[in-house]
Amino acid sequence: MRKTILLLVFCIALVHLFAQDNTYNLMPVPRSLKTHGNSCAINKQFTIGIIGHPGDRVYKEASRALRRLDNRMGFFFTQGNITPKDSSSSATLLIDVKRKAELNLQEDESYHLITGSKQVKITANTDLGAIRALETLQQLVSVQKGGYYFPGVEIYDEPRFPWRGLLLDITLHWMPMDVVKRTLDAMAAVKLNVFHMHLTEDQLFGIESKVYPRLTSVGAEGNFYTQENIKEIIAYADQRGIRIVPEFDVPGHCTAMLKAYPQLASVQRDYELQRYYGVFDPALDVTKPYTYAFLDTLFTEMAALFPDEYFHIGGDENTGKDWDRNPEIKAYMQQKGMTTYRELETEFISRLLPILKKNGKKMMGWDEIFRPGVPHDIMIQSWRGLESLVDAARQGYTSLLSTGYYIDLIQPTDYHYLVDPVPVNTPLTKEEQKFIVGGEATMWTEHVTPETVDSRIWPRTAAIAERLWSSQSVNNVDDMYRRLDKIDLYLEGLGTTQLKNKGMLMRRLVNGYNTQALEVLVNVIEPLKLYERNEGDTMYTVFSPYTKIADVATPDQKTAREFRKLVAAFCQSKDAKVVPELRKSLELWKNNDVAFQKLIQQSPVLKEAANLSEHLAQIAKVGIEALQFITSGKKPPLGWETKSLQITKKAKEQGGRCELQVVTAIEQLVKTAL
Amino acid sequence: MRKTILLLVFCIALVHLFAQDNTYNLMPVPRSLKTHGNSCAINKQFTIGIIGHPGDRVYKEASRALRRLDNRMGFFFTQGNITPKDSSSSATLLIDVKRKAELNLQEDESYHLITGSKQVKITANTDLGAIRALETLQQLVSVQKGGYYFPGVEIYDEPRFPWRGLLLDITLHWMPMDVVKRTLDAMAAVKLNVFHMHLTEDQLFGIESKVYPRLTSVGAEGNFYTQENIKEIIAYADQRGIRIVPEFDVPGHCTAMLKAYPQLASVQRDYELQRYYGVFDPALDVTKPYTYAFLDTLFTEMAALFPDEYFHIGGDENTGKDWDRNPEIKAYMQQKGMTTYRELETEFISRLLPILKKNGKKMMGWDEIFRPGVPHDIMIQSWRGLESLVDAARQGYTSLLSTGYYIDLIQPTDYHYLVDPVPVNTPLTKEEQKFIVGGEATMWTEHVTPETVDSRIWPRTAAIAERLWSSQSVNNVDDMYRRLDKIDLYLEGLGTTQLKNKGMLMRRLVNGYNTQALEVLVNVIEPLKLYERNEGDTMYTVFSPYTKIADVATPDQKTAREFRKLVAAFCQSKDAKVVPELRKSLELWKNNDVAFQKLIQQSPVLKEAANLSEHLAQIAKVGIEALQFITSGKKPPLGWETKSLQITKKAKEQGGRCELQVVTAIEQLVKTAL
Repeated sequence: MRKTILLLVFCIALVHLFAQDNTYNLMPVPRSLKTHGNSCAINKQFTIGIIGHPGDRVYKEASRALRRLDNRMGFFFTQGNITPKDSSSSATLLIDVKRKAELNLQEDESYHLITGSKQVKITANTDLGAIRALETLQQLVSVQKGGYYFPGVEIYDEPRFPWRGLLLDITLHWMPMDVVKRTLDAMAAVKLNVFHMHLTEDQLFGIESKVYPRLTSVGAEGNFYTQENIKEIIAYADQRGIRIVPEFDVPGHCTAMLKAYPQLASVQRDYELQRYYGVFDPALDVTKPYTYAFLDTLFTEMAALFPDEYFHIGGDENTGKDWDRNPEIKAYMQQKGMTTYRELETEFISRLLPILKKNGKKMMGWDEIFRPGVPHDIMIQSWRGLESLVDAARQGYTSLLSTGYYIDLIQPTDYHYLVDPVPVNTPLTKEEQKFIVGGEATMWTEHVTPETVDSRIWPRTAAIAERLWSSQSVNNVDDMYRRLDKIDLYLEGLGTTQLKNKGMLMRRLVNGYNTQALEVLVNVIEPLKLYERNEGDTMYTVFSPYTKIADVATPDQKTAREFRKLVAAFCQSKDAKVVPELRKSLELWKNNDVAFQKLIQQSPVLKEAANLSEHLAQIAKVGIEALQFITSGKKPPLGWETKSLQITKKAKEQGGRCELQVVTAIEQLVKTAL
Repeated sequence: MRKTILLLVFCIALVHLFAQDNTYNLMPVPRSLKTHGNSCAINKQFTIGIIGHPGDRVYKEASRALRRLDNRMGFFFTQGNITPKDSSSSATLLIDVKRKAELNLQEDESYHLITGSKQVKITANTDLGAIRALETLQQLVSVQKGGYYFPGVEIYDEPRFPWRGLLLDITLHWMPMDVVKRTLDAMAAVKLNVFHMHLTEDQLFGIESKVYPRLTSVGAEGNFYTQENIKEIIAYADQRGIRIVPEFDVPGHCTAMLKAYPQLASVQRDYELQRYYGVFDPALDVTKPYTYAFLDTLFTEMAALFPDEYFHIGGDENTGKDWDRNPEIKAYMQQKGMTTYRELETEFISRLLPILKKNGKKMMGWDEIFRPGVPHDIMIQSWRGLESLVDAARQGYTSLLSTGYYIDLIQPTDYHYLVDPVPVNTPLTKEEQKFIVGGEATMWTEHVTPETVDSRIWPRTAAIAERLWSSQSVNNVDDMYRRLDKIDLYLEGLGTTQLKNKGMLMRRLVNGYNTQALEVLVNVIEPLKLYERNEGDTMYTVFSPYTKIADVATPDQKTAREFRKLVAAFCQSKDAKVVPELRKSLELWKNNDVAFQKLIQQSPVLKEAANLSEHLAQIAKVGIEALQFITSGKKPPLGWETKSLQITKKAKEQGGRCELQVVTAIEQLVKTAL
């Protein structure tokens, strides 16, 4: 019996070992990975050689890869920029590429990577595949016996979905070029391949038009990308194998456009840039030929600027009210026999299609454009739910999932991670499933600035990237979190700011160097989720400060998550071994309030979170009591439960637009103590 | 007697209080500041009004000031962008400006700022003065009794020198737009007013020419400012009252230019971008009419792009060797009776002058252009020493000090702080002194990247800014360091990265989250100073990794500086009260090595600093022994001094291109123990 147990333990250990070996902190996990014994040491003599028929991209990305490796290992590699002269077949890293890729939905991104004791070899049909392989290679770098090496592996890899996107809204808060570039760097690192730029809104028209310069001179207050900027972004993304899809939101969400060109409006009024966030009535007058002439000119200009075949026209959240307010539009609808504004929208979409088509573009839009009668050559981006995605696919529309990937809504990583565009239980046939081309995380920027945006995108989007690249069966949440922690650090090393800005934001917020008391609190709170932060949709405007405690707080706080997990396990097992760790956290929280109240004296902006800190101390005290009852086996006195649950109930109040994330765990301890 | 002592203590306390009151952490210290009792509370109702005849700048800067204040205090101020409509005389902050300034060397930057209990009023002759006042106001924000307020002060302020510059070299390492913008923000915060852009070098031609596109298509590898970028930088700086002075370095330091246009070269050879750092032979052939035609066209294009009246032509470090190698140039010199290449340089300068003049520019150059016979309407930037500055001023040349402000050389802040362009003991007459218009800190970028450049510029440059703005008599080093600490934090809040990137660089370097053992070491080391880091001028190239321990280490490490100061005081006073603090540091260092050696296992890139960590432990042990002898009064045994000083001597070795900064303090303890 004892031997059997030992064998079992050994097997479990072995499985565990292999499980770790098989992932190597890679995110996304490759399609197939086998380990073998031939690891390849990395030293100063490391070189890269490229053979086959690669394009520019591989040379540039290989040069960048070389510098990235050296920046981590500090060897002073002797190679400079990699050029076609670097084709030695004895290079430490040999890249063999058959052809340059086209950046489109059909392109081959597969690669084969094998480590030998003297060489790592990457083979790919396209430079895109090689670029993906280079990112895998970066993540493979390991340390052993004081040296760096690539472990002995053989990887065959290719993506599950061809469209793995991230939307960045640059209108609700302006995002300058450096945000865009570091976002593209990080996207490439986790093999995302579509950067969707939400460029126009009620608040801002964020891109230069040379034909209609008022769009930015009047509609942008200095915050817009010039066409030169856009070309720079496209080239930067192209090198990393990332497509750029621009979105021009019509017929709603267009106040900035109407401020510049009021003749396009359904209702004549004084248009100012919208300062609040939400859904507003202004809409293009889609019954006027002038409007189509305008859009034809504008979209033709923009279609030439953006090389991608997809062109996003938004189409979302038109209220229809401004159409209703205009008698001419009502008359037009009546004449055409339209009974709802939705029908007019459908006509609008149909009239836009030829404009895009003649410019060689495929139309893409949000759920709303998916209407009975719209032609089949449009792509639907689903933000309302999996159902509309299924509907669209059934009817033969190419479609894309964003529901469940709204990273602005402060939801935990595992929630996003387990949303699958084509879940195991999909009602779709194999043929129908092919219409679903992937997904897109959406970074709407109402409540983020360039200082905080990275903390909303990363690391959670890396888990979404894995969902879209890796096999459906890769869905172990614990293992995802283990690797996410490494990827978080790795992405920071590449330039993202989610970790370093936390320190900065806290130092500014406490007006000093010692941020400890704030950090203890921040580590167990999260900003209000979904759409709750912006009370009544009127609390915040584009001028509001986003430098407060809700902006330091991030989604899916690790400390809180791990405490909840530990409590849940403890309440089941009553394992005394974890008690000291639980008690340590609880004591820390209990004692932190004194220090936090002192911080408020030195930095009154923290006053709004005073209640959170007090509540944390109070529930920590409850938790400690509960622990004592549980470990001692004594029953709590009469009334203790009621009193304790009153305290935990009160502790669910928001403060500074944040909520404590350990209250339910304390409640669980209370229940367990009874 | 006892009463007298009490009175004395009271007076000292009072003086101390006033000394603090009189500075309010302001940097630079204003010309005159009086305190009074009427402080002005800041709350949600805070507004800004502008009256008089201001230009655009004030509205934009006031809008920015409003958001900056709100970002720190988090009130949700109700005003949006400040416009001419915001002219209420009852605004919380009322700005009265007489006229819009011209950005030039003669312009008035003075202002008057007075706090009342209901209003702060800023009065200035020019918008420049108002902009400087707004920066003072930001630094005045104080906290009392849980609220924010502007303290009761009346300030009259104006600069001592009209030229207060910072040179940023964007050629030895490329510096993208975000670095430039955050540098300009921080410069404005400490009232620097000239941003000198070193744009061309052997390694890079960093600015687009539309007339000579090969300068960047061949000479820049993608790293250059487009003319659109330059316009953006100029506008950004202009709003902040900062002039932009471009530098086009000729006739030496021009390899990138020669790679693009080899016909300009003195020697025909295959030109490649220089990858090493240093002084090289390539030079323009200044005997050829073609060269002048080329420079005429290029400088005319650039003169139109940059509005400032000064135009820097470099002129430094031409070796003359390539001229010597060209028989035609030698013949030309012979024909003209020139015996040294310096005479040919003088002729070159004289022939460039009319090109700049016809474009309305004044020529500026480094020391080397100051030669017998050069016309008086050039400006000399002195980098070789105060002597050449004095010489130039005596001969009636406008001149500028950079010697002593080379912030790339890792010298301590107080060294720079006490360098005065016109020191108390200047040999110059009052009239001659007027030719010295100020100074410029120089950020040469051989050994910094966008990740580390801020840690070389800030906070030390704030002290140089104070030297150039404040009265000569403001020279208390202790008080400077006290305020520098606050300014460091304040600048981080504005976007500079010197503090937050330290954490990032350390996390990447240790390949983990726990950086404690590294930080203990980093806090007592500094990179090798002056030109020692780049051994033999061949250790580093433009491709080298700048992500290592020497790049996390910063100049003027506070921990080391304060330890040295404490030891110096202790060795004088033998005050037992400081012993525990000294011992605590020494114990920390002694015990750190074990943890540091473990870090090396996880991150071999740290191996190069193993000796530093070992030595730190060893000298800490010596220090502890010395402390024991000193406090016990026992004499050390025979041989202890020799052995100890051998250890400290060894501890002066470099490691990872860094040096321990507490060795002399330990030696002082050893000497004191004898």
